[in-house]
Amino acid sequence: MPGYSGTKDEYTRRMRRIEGQVRGIARMIEEDVYCIDVLTQVAAVTKALQAVSLGLVEDHLGHCVVEAARHSTADGEAKVREAADAIARLVRS
Amino acid sequence: MPGYSGTKDEYTRRMRRIEGQVRGIARMIEEDVYCIDVLTQVAAVTKALQAVSLGLVEDHLGHCVVEAARHSTADGEAKVREAADAIARLVRS
Amino acid sequence: MPGYSGTKDEYTRRMRRIEGQVRGIARMIEEDVYCIDVLTQVAAVTKALQAVSLGLVEDHLGHCVVEAARHSTADGEAKVREAADAIARLVRS
Amino acid sequence: MPGYSGTKDEYTRRMRRIEGQVRGIARMIEEDVYCIDVLTQVAAVTKALQAVSLGLVEDHLGHCVVEAARHSTADGEAKVREAADAIARLVRS
Repeated sequence: MPGYSGTKDEYTRRMRRIEGQVRGIARMIEEDVYCIDVLTQVAAVTKALQAVSLGLVEDHLGHCVVEAARHSTADGEAKVREAADAIARLVRS
Repeated sequence: MPGYSGTKDEYTRRMRRIEGQVRGIARMIEEDVYCIDVLTQVAAVTKALQAVSLGLVEDHLGHCVVEAARHSTADGEAKVREAADAIARLVRS
Repeated sequence: MPGYSGTKDEYTRRMRRIEGQVRGIARMIEEDVYCIDVLTQVAAVTKALQAVSLGLVEDHLGHCVVEAARHSTADGEAKVREAADAIARLVRS
Repeated sequence: MPGYSGTKDEYTRRMRRIEGQVRGIARMIEEDVYCIDVLTQVAAVTKALQAVSLGLVEDHLGHCVVEAARHSTADGEAKVREAADAIARLVRS
């Protein structure tokens, strides 16, 4: 089971909400809303996605990485490497 | 008309695509997909949103801000201030 | 003269301060300070640099870009393109 | 010992290099260098700091967090919480 399984419904709810916000931005553009107001909405969606990512990272570290580390040094190192790459993608996105 | 009106359909098309990607992430979570793969998708959506934002900023600068600057110094300064705040929100999101 | 010439001393002062903070981080590492405390300092320096960048962007828009736009449409467009690329680098760093 | 102790000299060397780059930016400003060129340098320093941070995060996860997790569940959870906060600061800086 993935690290986030304990709060899966909460993540799904948040993604549905983000989906609605993204649909709202498309509508704003169709209705020629002022650029700055569209940009403000896009920044809000980016922040919401960021919070989801940070939650997933913590869950992954607290379950998948920690369990692998207890299982063996090699497993722990592999999971840390993988997590570090994911964190780098998050930081650079 | 907003600065992006010339490429409005393109922005709408990109937002629809992002909406589909966000829906896809919700489905991944429902299907217990591995955390790292979900994180990779969220980073991809964040990048796509970032590209939309950067396009909107350039359109806004090239139309709304430039036109205001030609109209009067005061108008130009107000639009630059407003654009700088929007860029700050984008950088910090 | 660059757009920031009016507040040049302030920018130089801020950069000297950031230089001191960076030197402080090197010293923390030499003194084996706990990783989290070093990371906290690096995040503070990154925020300070970000604020400098956002100030430079606003000054550039308010002087170089606006003046070019008043001079000619072509000059204005070239300066907007250049500014948009600089903003993209800032967002992606 | 902190997680980065194994590569401490390398981190110190990189921070010294960043210090030199920051000093260089102050000089660019004093010499009225074009805004865009200063911004390009600031973005380069931010990227270098980001790389240092990502290295420190990986070292911390691979040593401090993993060792705590092996020691006890409670210790592991505390270290993961602390690391997640540091990663959030990094993402938001």
